[in-house]
Amino acid sequence: GPSLAAEQARRKVEKTVRELWFFLSSQLSKIGNQAAVPHVKLEKLKTDLEGYRRTIHDDLEKLRSVDDADEWRERKSEELGNLVQRRFEYIQNPSDCSSAKKIVCNLHKGCGFGCQLHHVTYCLITAYALKRTLILESKGWRYAPKGWETVFEPLSRTCTERGTTLKTFWGSAHRDIEKHQVIEMPIVDSLHPRPEFMPLAVPQDLGAQLEIFHGDPSVWWIGQVVRYLMRLRPEIEQDVQDAGKKMGFRNVIVGIHIRRTDKINLEAAFHSLEEYMTHVEDFYNQMERKKPGITRRVYLASDDSSVLEEAKMKYENYVFISDNSISRSAGLNTRYSDGSLRGVIIDIHYLSRCDFLVCTFSSQVCRVAYELMQTLHGDASGRFHSLDDIFYYGGQNGHNLHVLEAHPGSSSGLIQIKPGDSVGIAGNHWDGFSKGTNHRTGMSGLFPSYKAEDTVVKVSMPTYPEVPLKSSR
Amino acid sequence: GPSLAAEQARRKVEKTVRELWFFLSSQLSKIGNQAAVPHVKLEKLKTDLEGYRRTIHDDLEKLRSVDDADEWRERKSEELGNLVQRRFEYIQNPSDCSSAKKIVCNLHKGCGFGCQLHHVTYCLITAYALKRTLILESKGWRYAPKGWETVFEPLSRTCTERGTTLKTFWGSAHRDIEKHQVIEMPIVDSLHPRPEFMPLAVPQDLGAQLEIFHGDPSVWWIGQVVRYLMRLRPEIEQDVQDAGKKMGFRNVIVGIHIRRTDKINLEAAFHSLEEYMTHVEDFYNQMERKKPGITRRVYLASDDSSVLEEAKMKYENYVFISDNSISRSAGLNTRYSDGSLRGVIIDIHYLSRCDFLVCTFSSQVCRVAYELMQTLHGDASGRFHSLDDIFYYGGQNGHNLHVLEAHPGSSSGLIQIKPGDSVGIAGNHWDGFSKGTNHRTGMSGLFPSYKAEDTVVKVSMPTYPEVPLKSSR
Ligand SMILES: Nc1nc2c(ncn2[C@@H]2O[C@H](COP(=O)(O)OP(=O)(O)O)[C@@H](O)[C@H]2O)c(=O)[nH]1
Ligand SMILES: Nc1nc2c(ncn2[C@@H]2O[C@H](COP(=O)(O)OP(=O)(O)O)[C@@H](O)[C@H]2O)c(=O)[nH]1
Repeated sequence: GPSLAAEQARRKVEKTVRELWFFLSSQLSKIGNQAAVPHVKLEKLKTDLEGYRRTIHDDLEKLRSVDDADEWRERKSEELGNLVQRRFEYIQNPSDCSSAKKIVCNLHKGCGFGCQLHHVTYCLITAYALKRTLILESKGWRYAPKGWETVFEPLSRTCTERGTTLKTFWGSAHRDIEKHQVIEMPIVDSLHPRPEFMPLAVPQDLGAQLEIFHGDPSVWWIGQVVRYLMRLRPEIEQDVQDAGKKMGFRNVIVGIHIRRTDKINLEAAFHSLEEYMTHVEDFYNQMERKKPGITRRVYLASDDSSVLEEAKMKYENYVFISDNSISRSAGLNTRYSDGSLRGVIIDIHYLSRCDFLVCTFSSQVCRVAYELMQTLHGDASGRFHSLDDIFYYGGQNGHNLHVLEAHPGSSSGLIQIKPGDSVGIAGNHWDGFSKGTNHRTGMSGLFPSYKAEDTVVKVSMPTYPEVPLKSSR
Repeated sequence: GPSLAAEQARRKVEKTVRELWFFLSSQLSKIGNQAAVPHVKLEKLKTDLEGYRRTIHDDLEKLRSVDDADEWRERKSEELGNLVQRRFEYIQNPSDCSSAKKIVCNLHKGCGFGCQLHHVTYCLITAYALKRTLILESKGWRYAPKGWETVFEPLSRTCTERGTTLKTFWGSAHRDIEKHQVIEMPIVDSLHPRPEFMPLAVPQDLGAQLEIFHGDPSVWWIGQVVRYLMRLRPEIEQDVQDAGKKMGFRNVIVGIHIRRTDKINLEAAFHSLEEYMTHVEDFYNQMERKKPGITRRVYLASDDSSVLEEAKMKYENYVFISDNSISRSAGLNTRYSDGSLRGVIIDIHYLSRCDFLVCTFSSQVCRVAYELMQTLHGDASGRFHSLDDIFYYGGQNGHNLHVLEAHPGSSSGLIQIKPGDSVGIAGNHWDGFSKGTNHRTGMSGLFPSYKAEDTVVKVSMPTYPEVPLKSSR
């Protein structure tokens, strides 16, 4: 049976929730009996509700960590993550490179670092799913013309050349895929046919365990791929460590990534510093309950170098950890340079090491950091607030939720949903409603987010019996 | 580590709660931007919140029952309950009655059945705490002049007489309590000195287990005492069963106890039928989500015989299970009679067998039913809604909560509380606030109920090594 601590933690949530409903229903009745709600009354109500919110937050955290469950999740994540890394090691280091089956990708995709990294991510997933070796051709890379290995460990110690065999393009290879020794992948936008192993799918044999300890298995899986790809060269690793020391990076710290310049209006809306800081304040107000007087550290990453000064001016009770020269190098004029590459690596590294992330998930920089963050914890799926999109992988197969509870459609934009419906989600408005398309009815619109649930898509991939399940060390 | 089902259930609560806060904060902002809140908007908000409330209710129920925890709690409750019963058997059946140490009580307390039963309850607890045999003198009982055994099993098979030794009254016995063979107890109102084993205390050796599976150990403990006391004679048991069949008693069913006549204005306020039925409807609306079209049965007990007809007229979609002649016999003119005794026994029996109770805890009839209910489930501490008091035992030692979170005092009646404070609770207003006295400051007033928690008072009592921990069967 459950332990005393577990039962107490569970009953505590029940109690706070029960009292919340008593409170809310009484307050709303009072409001209902008035002609107009005075502004101060409403502010009081909001403040009071904040109290309930904070307590329930703590109650749920207690419930989550009871009986050392946090440590257990961390151990699980580490074990499974190391297994995945060994599997990548295995496919990337064939004993005979000349006869090894290969996936070939290049770094010519005309976009930023995060976007390119995600391109390589899908290439390595393809290699994993087809049990092949990924060859990454990176000479002439816009960030570092000498290529990938300027900063990262080579993807292989034994096999980095495609060899002399004629390549086949993915599209034409598809029929007898096993036969072709060298398959070259297009950018994801032109991928056709689309394999089912693309994100948000996870390998079936990992999925069962992942589902237990992690709240969003697909992010964890992508994180492991990114972890393998971003293994830094020793001298770069040293540089990153030094940079952190110089800036004074230390936990507890919240990371904010403010993506501006070329992104605004084209791919994302402008968000003021205040919008980010609201969530940072919320994080620290919660934390303050347990650690009064805690130093409010913020790791600030941005391609807009003016935002650091604004932040320091407006939020005097915060300590901003940031290297302004990195932001400057990230600007449009110097973006594609070794210096800028160093900067984005440092920013991603430290963002991923923050305790909480506030950013726009429309930016791949922040998504990469969030992905990497998963490899460093048991379940860090809840450690973010995105001001715009929900998490996605550019080029993912459809992201579908399954509906748990019915909701009627309405003229004000709500679509009808029924239990069992599959809904393709387009976004969460962070106001209780999500936007999506009901695959049963074909209708697009809003629905209450809590009435649908994520489905973990588990796809059969090689299970790598050659790689030991436990680390030999 | 936790199971998949447990983790999913936990994350589901987290998700619904998270979306609730998004929804609420967005809705309250919208309201704040308006000069006045239109009535229909507020009604819509209430309806929407009801959806969240119902889902969270189900989420928490799932969490509570995951991994067969409900069955586990039931088993625990049964095992521990049977142990307590065997201990009562043991003290009540001494091998040599003439030399046995005794507690003597009588049934002359000038009050109703529930009140008298609770008198005997405190007597049996005293016997248990002092490892003595309870002698109940009941000849001339106002409900049945021939005494207790008219309806109930005798409290002992071997020892029902006080014998010839001179009695000592509790007050004067206190100094060398062990020496006195026969101690006579006063009614609780005159009890002096007050022993620390009085409710809401529970025996220390049971407390540790009780705290795990039960949400309110003191009620469970009192329930076990009442269970021993109310063992029906076989012919009465048969009568009760027959009466149930005749009325058509069947689960799922909600019990309501409407206490009127002499109680109103003297000891309790009047509550309309509608106030009770609101909570019945709420119960069935929740249940309907899982069992659409479920028959809405209500067991109705009252000392006001007019309320059944009112209920049938006003709530046509409900099936009322009730014997109106019982209500009539419970009226003031015929209350102290064998027929009335039969009626209150039947009502308490079936109320305790309901799935949920709606009543006024100011009435001992309903409290007895709620106590007995605990002996029939794993943890039924949440299966009630009281329109007035929280649960209490008349004559209990102080009921103290310990404060978990600070709250400032205010001119509008709130008292200041700080973590660690002990607050004597006087009542829950069922609107988010409770009333109490802060023992640190001496101030009385309101405080948010969710900021304080019940303390289980565990008092060292005999551990009865003579009674096997496991049933021999
Ligand atoms: N160092 C640094 N570079 C950034 C930052 N934001 C944007 N950049 C630069 O801008 C590029 C943006 O392209 P990409 O990574 O595809 O992300 P996205 O355009 O935001 O989705 C990054 O790769 C960096 O070169 C930042 O916060 N820090
Ligand atoms: N059968 C029956 N008797 C009732 C009911 N309500 C009150 N009575 C009678 O009224 C008495 C009330 O006294 P008591 O048990 O001390 O409870 P209290 O006065 O409600 O706290 C009961 O014992 C019954 O004799 C009822 O719902 N059913």
